[in-house]
Amino acid sequence: MRKILVIGVGAGDPEHITMQAVGALRRVDVFFVLDKGEVKQDLVDLRQEILRRYAPDGGYRVVHGRDPERDRTTDAYVEAVDDWRRRRADVCQELIAAELADGQTGAFLVWGDPTLYDSTLAILDDIAARGFELDIEVIPGVSSVSALVARHRVPLNQVGRPVQITTGRRLAGAWPSDVDDVVVMLDARTAFTAHTGQDATIYWGAYLGTPDEILISGPLSEVADRIVAARAEARERKGWIMDTYLLRRGAPPASDGAP
Amino acid sequence: MRKILVIGVGAGDPEHITMQAVGALRRVDVFFVLDKGEVKQDLVDLRQEILRRYAPDGGYRVVHGRDPERDRTTDAYVEAVDDWRRRRADVCQELIAAELADGQTGAFLVWGDPTLYDSTLAILDDIAARGFELDIEVIPGVSSVSALVARHRVPLNQVGRPVQITTGRRLAGAWPSDVDDVVVMLDARTAFTAHTGQDATIYWGAYLGTPDEILISGPLSEVADRIVAARAEARERKGWIMDTYLLRRGAPPASDGAP
Ligand SMILES: C[S@@+](CC[C@H](N)C(=O)[O-])C[C@H]1O[C@@H](n2cnc3c(N)ncnc32)[C@H](O)[C@@H]1O
Ligand SMILES: C[S@@+](CC[C@H](N)C(=O)[O-])C[C@H]1O[C@@H](n2cnc3c(N)ncnc32)[C@H](O)[C@@H]1O
Repeated sequence: MRKILVIGVGAGDPEHITMQAVGALRRVDVFFVLDKGEVKQDLVDLRQEILRRYAPDGGYRVVHGRDPERDRTTDAYVEAVDDWRRRRADVCQELIAAELADGQTGAFLVWGDPTLYDSTLAILDDIAARGFELDIEVIPGVSSVSALVARHRVPLNQVGRPVQITTGRRLAGAWPSDVDDVVVMLDARTAFTAHTGQDATIYWGAYLGTPDEILISGPLSEVADRIVAARAEARERKGWIMDTYLLRRGAPPASDGAP
Repeated sequence: MRKILVIGVGAGDPEHITMQAVGALRRVDVFFVLDKGEVKQDLVDLRQEILRRYAPDGGYRVVHGRDPERDRTTDAYVEAVDDWRRRRADVCQELIAAELADGQTGAFLVWGDPTLYDSTLAILDDIAARGFELDIEVIPGVSSVSALVARHRVPLNQVGRPVQITTGRRLAGAWPSDVDDVVVMLDARTAFTAHTGQDATIYWGAYLGTPDEILISGPLSEVADRIVAARAEARERKGWIMDTYLLRRGAPPASDGAP
């Protein structure tokens, strides 16, 4: 039996890592990494920094696979992601079979929390469903959602009220039903601009936990343009961006010492 | 200026704590603790264990306040919680004023992530709004939501789909609109039993991260009774319970090696 650890390493700050994750890192024989065509060097550096800091004794190998391309031309988002996942499962299964001996422990490091908008678990389930036996363990991590609201020093939910976590693609369609608090991830299209007519507050953060972190908050109608501009500028300068935000219906509280 | 750290310590397992939280613990002069009438001794022990393990050099004081009672007789939930929060703010402000000198660092330890269904931030905002200056810093943590799905080894969301986090009180009313994936917290009434007619899967966990952890998952209609019984038995035995669950519309995936 091969053991695979799916380790959440936190959302950008190496110090977001948990003691459990640090303990897990030190049990690993082989780290598996899928490389994208365009490499985000900062993220590669961050991963290396995490291993250097928390698994300083080495004794592990890092094995790279080529992440297959996702079909971004189609409108069939779920199907495209499904197909992509299957091809990634092929790559991962081959890597694991070739590089991890029976009784050894492999690992995937995942940004933030491994259960939130990440496909590693689904890929491993695909592989397991093919009859390739894996003993999977998931180590939870601090998500970018928690990092976002911590930095803004605001609660994620209001008293007794629900909160929804969704994607930019969905928010672009409509504000979700029956919730006043919405966290948006995977938004490549600044979908909040579709809702500036609403009485809402936005708490936005990019590159959370990293030295490049940007925080902007305020009434949505007032700060939306500033966020769009800051986002475009940062993306241009760094070549990539990761941002997320909380939309809360209503005006900001009076006591809000907004960052 | 007084510094107050709101430190997320993870959802039951002392190893859920982050390196950032460990660093923060070591900067603290005074830990503030609000004691409830009925003390959950396990939680007191867990807090002590965290301090013993991660701030072994001491050099801090632990100051206890009496948590005021919440009015549980009224149906006006939000108002009752608001009133309770104001009275807790009174207690905390007095404690901070009396026990923390200017330039010192105080802290509240919060289970899980401090932004999720926790009133510490709102209490501190109340105090700050009264003109009592505080420099607040929030240290994110692993929430019980992340702990739950990690232990069940399932993703929190489905590909490109939203997930809602809500309360038992709300779920008892209706399944939330337009979401197939719902995490339920603060459920004292096993609200999932109102939805056993749905084609849904439940991933339930109690005392997550602790030696008493219980995990049950499966088709909601099939396992609901088992969860109700396990919950009642555990609650009786231990005198208290903390449980949370994910409801996912549809049957469990075939590959699901359910705990
Ligand atoms: C593929 S998802 C992975 C989420 C991750 N598993 C988590 O728990 O945060 C990527 C999205 O997460 C958000 N994100 C991740 N890291 C972030 C960071 N450091 N700052 C801002 N947003 C981040 C962005 O919305 C991004 O589009
Ligand atoms: C007042 S809320 C605090 C939540 C916490 N801030 C977090 O991030 O998990 C308490 C609720 O959290 C959930 N919870 C917290 N710790 C838990 C644990 N160890 N196991 C199961 N549920 C837990 C339960 O639903 C409980 O009713």
